Amino acid sequence: MSYNQPSKMDKPPLITETKTLKLELPPEGLKLEHGGVLPEVEIAYETCGRLSEARDNVVFICHALTGDAHVAGMYAGEDKPTGWWSNMVRPGGGIDTDRYFVVCANILGGCKGTTGPASTNPATGRPYGSAFPEITVGDIVDVHKRFLEQLGFQRIYAVLGGSFGGMQAAEFGVRFPGFSEKCVLVATGPSLTTQALAFDIVGREAILNDPNWRGGDYYDGERPNAGLAQARKLAHITYLSNEMMKEKFGRRLRALPKDSLEQLTSAFKEQFEVESYLAHQGRKFTARFDANSYIRITEAMDYYDLAAGFKTLTDSVARSTSRTLIVALSGDWLFLPRQSEALARAFHAAKKEVSYFCIPAEAGHDAFLTHIDQLVGVLGDFLTMKPVPPDAPLPEEKLKDYAKLIDMMPRDIRSVLDLACSDGSLLARIAARHPGVSCTGIDINCGVLSRVMRAGHDAILADIDEGLKIVPNNTFDCAVLSESLQVMKHPDKVLDELLRVAPVGLVSFPNFGLWKVRLGLLFRGRMPKTKRLPHTWYNTPNIHLCTVRDFFDLCREKNIETESVAYLATHAFSKLLIAIGLKNFGASRVLVKIRRKPV
Amino acid sequence: MSYNQPSKMDKPPLITETKTLKLELPPEGLKLEHGGVLPEVEIAYETCGRLSEARDNVVFICHALTGDAHVAGMYAGEDKPTGWWSNMVRPGGGIDTDRYFVVCANILGGCKGTTGPASTNPATGRPYGSAFPEITVGDIVDVHKRFLEQLGFQRIYAVLGGSFGGMQAAEFGVRFPGFSEKCVLVATGPSLTTQALAFDIVGREAILNDPNWRGGDYYDGERPNAGLAQARKLAHITYLSNEMMKEKFGRRLRALPKDSLEQLTSAFKEQFEVESYLAHQGRKFTARFDANSYIRITEAMDYYDLAAGFKTLTDSVARSTSRTLIVALSGDWLFLPRQSEALARAFHAAKKEVSYFCIPAEAGHDAFLTHIDQLVGVLGDFLTMKPVPPDAPLPEEKLKDYAKLIDMMPRDIRSVLDLACSDGSLLARIAARHPGVSCTGIDINCGVLSRVMRAGHDAILADIDEGLKIVPNNTFDCAVLSESLQVMKHPDKVLDELLRVAPVGLVSFPNFGLWKVRLGLLFRGRMPKTKRLPHTWYNTPNIHLCTVRDFFDLCREKNIETESVAYLATHAFSKLLIAIGLKNFGASRVLVKIRRKPV
Repeated sequence: MSYNQPSKMDKPPLITETKTLKLELPPEGLKLEHGGVLPEVEIAYETCGRLSEARDNVVFICHALTGDAHVAGMYAGEDKPTGWWSNMVRPGGGIDTDRYFVVCANILGGCKGTTGPASTNPATGRPYGSAFPEITVGDIVDVHKRFLEQLGFQRIYAVLGGSFGGMQAAEFGVRFPGFSEKCVLVATGPSLTTQALAFDIVGREAILNDPNWRGGDYYDGERPNAGLAQARKLAHITYLSNEMMKEKFGRRLRALPKDSLEQLTSAFKEQFEVESYLAHQGRKFTARFDANSYIRITEAMDYYDLAAGFKTLTDSVARSTSRTLIVALSGDWLFLPRQSEALARAFHAAKKEVSYFCIPAEAGHDAFLTHIDQLVGVLGDFLTMKPVPPDAPLPEEKLKDYAKLIDMMPRDIRSVLDLACSDGSLLARIAARHPGVSCTGIDINCGVLSRVMRAGHDAILADIDEGLKIVPNNTFDCAVLSESLQVMKHPDKVLDELLRVAPVGLVSFPNFGLWKVRLGLLFRGRMPKTKRLPHTWYNTPNIHLCTVRDFFDLCREKNIETESVAYLATHAFSKLLIAIGLKNFGASRVLVKIRRKPV
Repeated sequence: MSYNQPSKMDKPPLITETKTLKLELPPEGLKLEHGGVLPEVEIAYETCGRLSEARDNVVFICHALTGDAHVAGMYAGEDKPTGWWSNMVRPGGGIDTDRYFVVCANILGGCKGTTGPASTNPATGRPYGSAFPEITVGDIVDVHKRFLEQLGFQRIYAVLGGSFGGMQAAEFGVRFPGFSEKCVLVATGPSLTTQALAFDIVGREAILNDPNWRGGDYYDGERPNAGLAQARKLAHITYLSNEMMKEKFGRRLRALPKDSLEQLTSAFKEQFEVESYLAHQGRKFTARFDANSYIRITEAMDYYDLAAGFKTLTDSVARSTSRTLIVALSGDWLFLPRQSEALARAFHAAKKEVSYFCIPAEAGHDAFLTHIDQLVGVLGDFLTMKPVPPDAPLPEEKLKDYAKLIDMMPRDIRSVLDLACSDGSLLARIAARHPGVSCTGIDINCGVLSRVMRAGHDAILADIDEGLKIVPNNTFDCAVLSESLQVMKHPDKVLDELLRVAPVGLVSFPNFGLWKVRLGLLFRGRMPKTKRLPHTWYNTPNIHLCTVRDFFDLCREKNIETESVAYLATHAFSKLLIAIGLKNFGASRVLVKIRRKPV
């Protein structure tokens, strides 16, 4: 079943409602990290899907900066889904409401039903305003954990969030180990980049400079809407890529509405479409959001650092017990892929189960809400609890090669990395022969790799030629590179990487020294083609072919120990050649166990 | 001589002063494009270097958005260069004041000495303020042209600018064909991107929202400095890359100055370093810049479009007669490389002499001011009027191959493109044999390629494997790919590209069918190495080798006509093989003239 298509059966629409829960607090109220106290806290939340009898299918979604609890579905009386992630969270969706009981709550400090600066301060009977205490991401997830426990959940299946929601989910995993089985971090990072910080600083300043701001106590008069709108416009620019903005608006002009002509200093009589779009976004935002909430929440985000209180980010994520999926978006310039990479590297360094995908997303940061085709598949495959259907049958020769390779693996390993793992057919066989071994696959093909997670393995979407930068030294006990050495841009560097991330490697490759290849070139005068090398010279992915001898030369040169070798052949004549010692003539493929030599 | 090192001799420091010139205008004053009129215009300008006797070495530099005439050197009494581009414009620099007479003037609408909104309105005796007419980039360059003519220059050697200065230089070239021999456009584009527009819109709004703005007539009271500072902070973020900001500030905190503690809504007791840096930038800017100028100039920039008034950008640049150099910066996200590419493509489509470089610049847009090592070389090589010193002598075999290739070129060509031209040694020989032919080289190595411009050719810095996207169809009469087919990722696609940009191609490549290669593999059992193929299998750039037969197979498949072939060999035995018809055995390299078959 594909996640990408809406289910064909007409499912009843998802109807939700916002509920409110009053947190049970000790008499002294909720103490906050920075010293503030809230005497009472209400939580606005929504749920969709059905709780399983075993109560083991709760997925808690953390919303982004200015989001709310209405993650999916529609309210009674509406005619189409209005939830902010209803393309993802739906029956048959990436977060499948037929399988999971999805819970989403508005965050502390917000203005969508959960206690925030616009809520009534019980001490005064008026809105908190400037008296609302400072909050942190720690406070936000602490409140959510209390909320979930009060709903009766001592453990949930997954915690999940994108953007600022991803920061909350990451903090959730680290702060409450054991609470969530899985954790998904989308388009996020352990902290903001300097640039993102800088934008927030300028945005907040627009609010503080607004004459209606009045220190935050504006609820009895005009609101600082001009400043808030400006902050929103600025933030909105950062949510889209330059390409996306070009596509949406280009430099198209529209005539100015008459009544705004006088306000203009300039006599330019037309306005850019992007200008009116931003103005619209600003207006819409001031109608739904509170400036105090904006200040408080962006401050919580800006000062947040997942590593704070720990010596390193690795020490921080070492507390997590969740199987974690990190998804970056290629075109995201607010939360950069390199931030997600840093997160993934930290999880690896802490020997945690982690998968990492950077998926193409021309549209920018907002793509996790708007362009979700690939994200749907990746989240669905990671969250699924269904066993994997058996593979399509493999050719017998391949099965034999796999068996041989697995035979040659060290006995006592606990973790294996398969480079260029494709759909994981080798990993599946390793897992079957070595139960309990943690298996991770790396590949460059997102769709194919995603299914590896479905089988219960970890997955890393990466171009091996660019180095395994998210994998620290000695992360695995054994690394495998099966039939892919020759497609690498720098085979020698890939061997280095392989023996950097694991002490033992298993490498197989087609032998260009095979008699058929040699005679083919000699007599045909064309670049050789064989069963193992079926491509034409100009479009072959096999750009660095070698013979058995060449490979051993390289190992000698690089001081790599070749512990054992298997010469593989299919034809009887080839086998004969191997038997009489003409291995470089007879082997159509070669399997070598390599090991770093002690220095 | 290298441009990159300060000259060794102790040169006297460059002392400059700001001069003022009153434009000679008709009695009715200066008419502006949008209908406004200025009764008088003063220009503030500086010069450095010496005017040659032939008066043929004037380089006019257009400054960026908030720059001024003080481009280089120092004022009397200063102890080090204070000009905004003094690292570039100096004795021995990329713009060498020992060779060129450099002129820079403050732009119309500015606040640095040239008439602008803060200047006195002769009609009222008070500053123009809101009465200052709307200006365009056309007005700005028109004023500069009048200014240069009034200085006595009917023609200049080069007009040059970066960022908004590049827009002015481009407009200059198109508006006044014949006036400038060369034109250099750095980190710029034919118009702003939508995103850059959006930032400007939000920035201007900060000024318009400032209570002190008062429609622009604020000169008798408080100035809208809060708004202006905010606009500057925002703009400043766009001048740096995210990486650069990270490097400069990271997320480091500093204690807040005491007196600002009370102003804060938040109790966070520390401020980010980037916050105080931006605050500093904002303050510094309000001390030196006028809000009205900022509004007027950014509007001129935002509404500017080099293609306005023409059907296409190509029609616009077709008016230019200048030899043009376009330089993009890889890490620039304000003026994107793709905008410079679009410019370069338009110049090509208009059959103009144009060179294009996208140089690595991690630092972002401001790199054209701050990280100029490579830019110095590229500008220097393009501007130089010195003849090229003779090449290092080439091996005789190579010279013969070149001669053969040039023999095979069509007779009546007017333009040649050399793909993977390296230092231009082949181009130099083509130019010598075909004087008057316009020569362009493409290569991926910036430093080596830059010298090709020195020899008077055009140059394009590009990865051929990514396609010749800045070269339109049929731009050249003949395209050459010498000894580089086998290093391409997609040799077949490169042949397509070659015959897309020119009707005739000349391709040479090493022959993998050579007898030595065949026998080497057969008997040695290793990937063959020869004089022409000296690399080891794992680090060879030759990733798509082929034999003569393979190449002809491909041409047949792609319906490419092979008009003539030269089989080249060095050894007597190889020559013998060729002579008796065993060409695929004998040729160590092959030279083929190919042509698109008529459809």
